[in-house]
Amino acid sequence: MSNRYPAPELKDLPDDIKARVLEVQEKSGFVPNVFLALARRPAEWRAFFAYHDALMLKQDGSLTKGDREMIVTTTSAANQCLYCVVAHGAILRIYEKKPLVADQVAVNYRKADISPRQRAMLDFAMKVCLHSSEIADADFDALHAHGFSDEDIWDIAAIAGFFAMSNRLANFASIPPNEEFYLMGRLPKAK
Amino acid sequence: MSNRYPAPELKDLPDDIKARVLEVQEKSGFVPNVFLALARRPAEWRAFFAYHDALMLKQDGSLTKGDREMIVTTTSAANQCLYCVVAHGAILRIYEKKPLVADQVAVNYRKADISPRQRAMLDFAMKVCLHSSEIADADFDALHAHGFSDEDIWDIAAIAGFFAMSNRLANFASIPPNEEFYLMGRLPKAK
Amino acid sequence: MSNRYPAPELKDLPDDIKARVLEVQEKSGFVPNVFLALARRPAEWRAFFAYHDALMLKQDGSLTKGDREMIVTTTSAANQCLYCVVAHGAILRIYEKKPLVADQVAVNYRKADISPRQRAMLDFAMKVCLHSSEIADADFDALHAHGFSDEDIWDIAAIAGFFAMSNRLANFASIPPNEEFYLMGRLPKAK
Amino acid sequence: MSNRYPAPELKDLPDDIKARVLEVQEKSGFVPNVFLALARRPAEWRAFFAYHDALMLKQDGSLTKGDREMIVTTTSAANQCLYCVVAHGAILRIYEKKPLVADQVAVNYRKADISPRQRAMLDFAMKVCLHSSEIADADFDALHAHGFSDEDIWDIAAIAGFFAMSNRLANFASIPPNEEFYLMGRLPKAK
Amino acid sequence: MSNRYPAPELKDLPDDIKARVLEVQEKSGFVPNVFLALARRPAEWRAFFAYHDALMLKQDGSLTKGDREMIVTTTSAANQCLYCVVAHGAILRIYEKKPLVADQVAVNYRKADISPRQRAMLDFAMKVCLHSSEIADADFDALHAHGFSDEDIWDIAAIAGFFAMSNRLANFASIPPNEEFYLMGRLPKAK
Amino acid sequence: MSNRYPAPELKDLPDDIKARVLEVQEKSGFVPNVFLALARRPAEWRAFFAYHDALMLKQDGSLTKGDREMIVTTTSAANQCLYCVVAHGAILRIYEKKPLVADQVAVNYRKADISPRQRAMLDFAMKVCLHSSEIADADFDALHAHGFSDEDIWDIAAIAGFFAMSNRLANFASIPPNEEFYLMGRLPKAK
Repeated sequence: MSNRYPAPELKDLPDDIKARVLEVQEKSGFVPNVFLALARRPAEWRAFFAYHDALMLKQDGSLTKGDREMIVTTTSAANQCLYCVVAHGAILRIYEKKPLVADQVAVNYRKADISPRQRAMLDFAMKVCLHSSEIADADFDALHAHGFSDEDIWDIAAIAGFFAMSNRLANFASIPPNEEFYLMGRLPKAK
Repeated sequence: MSNRYPAPELKDLPDDIKARVLEVQEKSGFVPNVFLALARRPAEWRAFFAYHDALMLKQDGSLTKGDREMIVTTTSAANQCLYCVVAHGAILRIYEKKPLVADQVAVNYRKADISPRQRAMLDFAMKVCLHSSEIADADFDALHAHGFSDEDIWDIAAIAGFFAMSNRLANFASIPPNEEFYLMGRLPKAK
Repeated sequence: MSNRYPAPELKDLPDDIKARVLEVQEKSGFVPNVFLALARRPAEWRAFFAYHDALMLKQDGSLTKGDREMIVTTTSAANQCLYCVVAHGAILRIYEKKPLVADQVAVNYRKADISPRQRAMLDFAMKVCLHSSEIADADFDALHAHGFSDEDIWDIAAIAGFFAMSNRLANFASIPPNEEFYLMGRLPKAK
Repeated sequence: MSNRYPAPELKDLPDDIKARVLEVQEKSGFVPNVFLALARRPAEWRAFFAYHDALMLKQDGSLTKGDREMIVTTTSAANQCLYCVVAHGAILRIYEKKPLVADQVAVNYRKADISPRQRAMLDFAMKVCLHSSEIADADFDALHAHGFSDEDIWDIAAIAGFFAMSNRLANFASIPPNEEFYLMGRLPKAK
Repeated sequence: MSNRYPAPELKDLPDDIKARVLEVQEKSGFVPNVFLALARRPAEWRAFFAYHDALMLKQDGSLTKGDREMIVTTTSAANQCLYCVVAHGAILRIYEKKPLVADQVAVNYRKADISPRQRAMLDFAMKVCLHSSEIADADFDALHAHGFSDEDIWDIAAIAGFFAMSNRLANFASIPPNEEFYLMGRLPKAK
Repeated sequence: MSNRYPAPELKDLPDDIKARVLEVQEKSGFVPNVFLALARRPAEWRAFFAYHDALMLKQDGSLTKGDREMIVTTTSAANQCLYCVVAHGAILRIYEKKPLVADQVAVNYRKADISPRQRAMLDFAMKVCLHSSEIADADFDALHAHGFSDEDIWDIAAIAGFFAMSNRLANFASIPPNEEFYLMGRLPKAK
């Protein structure tokens, strides 16, 4: 964690935040740094994770959890955000059950071993990330051709948009990824 | 409002959202389009405005409300977001009591009639907007020299980050600014 | 006006320049700063306004005066020229009788409330502004499809070219727009 | 000359334009294409050459004719304008009496065999060419350190600005350089 | 391996190439794809690996093998070359005995856990990679301040230059990294 | 030659390098600076020229020697490499027997007097030079349409790749082109 913006200690967190932190620790075996780094500002923390959950844990629509993490990893690499590439790349490997895919989309998604549908999804996500003012009807058409609905497209854009924010926060505050993320999902699951 | 993502009608909104919409309508005399455009997804709406309020209505710190809107207007122009430049430019004019300042920062903040402190603030906000991966200690030093604390700098970065998201949402969904915004704050207040 | 390049006083101007300045003052109610800022160099002033008039006051061809000012406002925004965006944006509002259009094209002409023909015109003007070495036959075809003749296209390119120069002059010499321009054309005409 | 915008024949030119064309033909042994290509629009021709002459034939100030052509050649290369690089590169070689300098500044002016004063001049001219909205006091200071006055700086900027226009005209209209220019100034003068 | 440029079979290789391939297979346990992908053109293969070895296996100078691989991984990420980031990232992890460092420099070397000397080395390597025409004496000074000699700087530049070529080859021919590389150096060595 | 990296004297060169240098001197009448500038590192020299010869002196395939030099001149201009533009531009003029073509492709290859087949070749070479990570099947299709085989395309890409390296070497080490190159191929051959 950066010296400039030290994370609060677990014991000093408001109850609702502490509960979520403990829950994620229980589930993952460690507390991802972003949960503590942002907790120094509880109101922002609450909005951030409410937004995150609304987009990333959404049940309906045709985007899988793997698709969602793939958008995050790819656009975060374009923004050179170390935290998000490493942390969400780990989750991407797990959801997609593909130990190589996160490194592939982070370096060059055009060469990644993904479906044509995912490729179209990433083309759009990258346009939201890098040139959102130039988005035009043709971009929607390209996604419709792969079966994405307008609601799916909202999901893609909103995820790319949310991480446009997250990447900037993690970059400016120098939030480092937890070491655990680097290896997650790279090895066959122990039996 | 775009045909692709029609806004819900006021009567169909969840109560909490409807209450906020009516409140802003009461205060402003109209409902800014973003309140309705995002309301088609209540969970996202709630997170969006909770985050917005945490950053823009924050009471402490040395950033004035005008400073905050100036960050929004300047970075939204860099992202070519029509909604945010026009809507927040209007609020900026009102808070700063300067009818010209919004157009100035939107076109070229380096030529705007603002204080050296605001200029330094915008230099940093633009770096968060455009090159966040390159932010370094020297960028913090430049702000400290103008009396900004590290918490103020967090405010600047978080606002620039939040609107990195908002700009992308408004761009992709083609949310138009209400006509009322274009003229707001340009005329001396009627007595 | 910048301290580095002070404008001459009206009384010190050569007669032909003084006459034009008085004429524009008569017509507009004030003297746009560019008329005085450039007058410190009479030979350049004369060539500048001769060129300006040949392009902007041209009678023949299918471009309206509003079209011409729209090209200026849009490309000047791409060059971040405060003087030209504010001054020509004002004239654009008046000619097009659309109080919102100048802000729209300055922020993102792709979202502006303009005709498809104007959109094609601006696509070409922006290519002249930003990537003139890449102009190819296909760019002419796109304009022909909207009824522009090759002479109209020359007009578009020459206007974008002339303001490529003007924008650089106003930027380097820090010529500020007159305050009067900011509000012009935004209000319904008083009866 | 491009088929799209055929040049008029000499005999069809207005008298003043014809006189100048004959004069330049007399002096150079051929008519540079830009004189004919633009002559199809006499009013624009007159303003163009009046402006050109005011900047390039200016007698006072510390910029030499070679300096002026060096600015043109360098910035025209940045704009990838074939006509201006080849034609003004030829004149640059002659004025500077350096057969290699035009190719050097066209490819990379930082490696050219020029004086430190010329290097500073070109740094500024390139900023006018590429990033005029970012010009700041420090840029003027850098030139003052080499003995340039503010009037000299105006000359540099105005020349870079004028050719920002010329380059766009020659690019869009595909005006080819005369073959004669390619070799001019490369050989020792025949005795 | 891409269908367009199939790799030759081991048995069909010239003897000298086959010997090197078998040697690397012996040492690594597999044949890195670049050895086979380029072998379809023996003369190019020989020059490529002679150059590679001259730069990467060089014994003298102050750059360690880890430093050299760090330059490769960082600049290859800037060029979005999947093969080189994954393959050389693996070797970097092993030489530096740091399982996290390759992912760090690939995403944003400014945030990597490396020495200030390595940071200066990468700043220069990235300038060679992205803006080599702008390299100036000040860039050399910055490296001298960290103890690099001019010969070390040649090493840095030559490695960044060689992989400017390699990255383009692997990108255009779509050479995929071997799966083995993705995990190499991430786990503590088995005892 | 730069003071930082002085070239060795001919007498101090290893025999194989000396032989090649003498051979090129015999043939050209002078020693191109790159032969001496790189000779201070014999292993790198040998690999560099082995690679160069494999690509540039290749006998088979449909690319002519002129085509090859045209790729070099065009991409080296994009990389602003003075040595390669001037030296290979000279050879290009000679092979193509076109005294104007090198200046044309160096400034803007889209305006050069070359065949449509060469234009397509340069489009691809420039993509390898500037955006190799984005190369896709459509780029190959465009070349096939002009009769290029996949092996020809490898040649184009490998030449553009090799000079991506050479340009960076010549830029960082400030290798100046020999004066002889500037004029070569510009004059009709003496009878």
